[in-house]
Amino acid sequence: MTNEKKIRVGITQGDTNGIGYEVILKSLSDPLTLELFTPVVYGSTKVAAFHRKACGLQPVQFNSIDNAIQAHDGVCNMVEIGPDDLKVELGVPSEAAGRAALTSLECAVSDLRNGIIDVLVTAPIDKNSIQGDNFHFPGHTEYLENAVGDGSRSLMILFNDRMRVALVTTHLPVSQIAEAITREAILEKLELFNESLRRDFAIEYPRIAVLALNPHSGDHGLLGNEEKDIIAPAIEEAYGKKICCFGPYSADGFFGNASYTKFDGVLAMYHDQGLAPFKTLAMDNGVNFTAGLPIVRTSPDHGTGYDIAGKGVASPDSMLAAIYAAIDIYRNRRTYDEIHANPLRKQYFDKSNDNVVLDLSKDDDDDGTTPINV
Amino acid sequence: MTNEKKIRVGITQGDTNGIGYEVILKSLSDPLTLELFTPVVYGSTKVAAFHRKACGLQPVQFNSIDNAIQAHDGVCNMVEIGPDDLKVELGVPSEAAGRAALTSLECAVSDLRNGIIDVLVTAPIDKNSIQGDNFHFPGHTEYLENAVGDGSRSLMILFNDRMRVALVTTHLPVSQIAEAITREAILEKLELFNESLRRDFAIEYPRIAVLALNPHSGDHGLLGNEEKDIIAPAIEEAYGKKICCFGPYSADGFFGNASYTKFDGVLAMYHDQGLAPFKTLAMDNGVNFTAGLPIVRTSPDHGTGYDIAGKGVASPDSMLAAIYAAIDIYRNRRTYDEIHANPLRKQYFDKSNDNVVLDLSKDDDDDGTTPINV
Repeated sequence: MTNEKKIRVGITQGDTNGIGYEVILKSLSDPLTLELFTPVVYGSTKVAAFHRKACGLQPVQFNSIDNAIQAHDGVCNMVEIGPDDLKVELGVPSEAAGRAALTSLECAVSDLRNGIIDVLVTAPIDKNSIQGDNFHFPGHTEYLENAVGDGSRSLMILFNDRMRVALVTTHLPVSQIAEAITREAILEKLELFNESLRRDFAIEYPRIAVLALNPHSGDHGLLGNEEKDIIAPAIEEAYGKKICCFGPYSADGFFGNASYTKFDGVLAMYHDQGLAPFKTLAMDNGVNFTAGLPIVRTSPDHGTGYDIAGKGVASPDSMLAAIYAAIDIYRNRRTYDEIHANPLRKQYFDKSNDNVVLDLSKDDDDDGTTPINV
Repeated sequence: MTNEKKIRVGITQGDTNGIGYEVILKSLSDPLTLELFTPVVYGSTKVAAFHRKACGLQPVQFNSIDNAIQAHDGVCNMVEIGPDDLKVELGVPSEAAGRAALTSLECAVSDLRNGIIDVLVTAPIDKNSIQGDNFHFPGHTEYLENAVGDGSRSLMILFNDRMRVALVTTHLPVSQIAEAITREAILEKLELFNESLRRDFAIEYPRIAVLALNPHSGDHGLLGNEEKDIIAPAIEEAYGKKICCFGPYSADGFFGNASYTKFDGVLAMYHDQGLAPFKTLAMDNGVNFTAGLPIVRTSPDHGTGYDIAGKGVASPDSMLAAIYAAIDIYRNRRTYDEIHANPLRKQYFDKSNDNVVLDLSKDDDDDGTTPINV
């Protein structure tokens, strides 16, 4: 593409007492990254400097600005969101850190809505200290669905180079999982997953594996009936809607014989079922992507890392992967939308049935199609 | 040890329509194995021959006998359990195959109780077709607990060279997991696991990691209270009983950062939570061991493999690992019991407190110990 504008990647600071700044600074430390995109961090140069010193990192030059509109290409931009007197307490949750994380997220989401930044990458938050009047969600995914979903539902997808895992239920206690597994929920997630694999991951005809809920896929009802009563019918219905999906597969066997290598996506029923095997394989290059929303948001797949905060040992691999994934998805979406924006009008004569055997008993004119006068 | 008698390994045929015979035959095909142990298969030479031909395997010479008492060292023994007219239907469940699997299991368990065989290795069964008046259990584990448990409770342990995973709940629908997670259940499993790691795996002071039930370990109550109310107190109580256990850890993070390499055992709350990540790592060399019972029983960690039955492509690695693991555990137990059979009487003066600072304010005689007259 010619005249390509640099993509503006908004990055939230996340919880200021965790490893967020460390992985951000490490990710932006190579000046060559500025050739590829323009970072806009929502946080504070002061706090960044504190973490840089604590971790013993090389300095990163920031362009300190008040508003993302002032951001420049070719430099790391820092939108100063305050407060000026924010105290960093390494490795412990604090109300101030929670508030700072929320302010950063709110500013970034507002700019994202207004097109000032193109994609959003979020550093990890502490899900307890961020709670308050303006945040009463179990995580980013649910917050964004509410804030920028415009009524559309989101889907949590975890992925790396080898596997994409989506979840039917996300942040739910185990005691509430079974009742949340409905035919409608599975169907909705399958449609979202299928659409995202096509539009965001540029896979034309994605193949999706659906995991069972119960051990041994319910063993024909011995260990639960959800497979027979809910999951299998949902798969069948989705298949009828031209979603290429298979299952239900029992989770342990599916991962044990590496079946995930044969599918473009894996739909798991709940958090640990999908994420424990995924992270076992992905180690520290997994990316969390919120599909189904009008905006593109990714994040590293790790948490605040309080136990190693400020020690300089956190790996930036997942954060880097999240940044590049957001850019890839943004481009894939644009290409997909361009291609599908003005489809050619259907031809008069449908040639898709070329292989139909010629029926000589009919009139010569009747070739099975319906000519339309326009 | 001198005068070592060969260990008799009883092997059930499992479901006769699956890959059981294939992995048994492949495991016993190397004559050198007969130097190490004496196999006693409970099944039928006819059915074995059928599978051998279907899979295109080398012949295995069997000593066909009516009763395991007639078994010889240096040969593969086959206890013919009938029926003579058993028909093999490759890859489909059948009532006849279920009955044959049960007969094999019953004969082997009876011989195990009577000391005619030393350990039991079970080939996979189809959990539906085996059900009947004499079998109404979700799996081998529960059947054996009932048949040879003598009142003691069992613990399912999956392991390979790198990891040992035990489960608090085994074959339970997801909807029933949360209510089955009690302080008592966790404590019981921790005690069984600790004892098994000491006695069966010869680890003197095992370190056990306990996984959380809910995603993100409940996130301080946002995603469930079982961690705070049940699991953490159970760990504390077990620690008080000198079981070296830690947690609860959220499952995805625990496997994601390879924490399992730092522990001798991992206690998972439910089937898929422990087994999906385990099998992801173990691939085809995992072994299932039923701990806590007076007898030693292992099995490969795969199922009947109906989809590949009779095709000759099944890997015997897990079955071979199960056989050698059973022998190792049998020997470890014997050694442990020998060592602990007649412990030396405790010395008069406990010297374990050598590092206590001498308190000169007390009488010379009072060295902190209590002399006992005997």
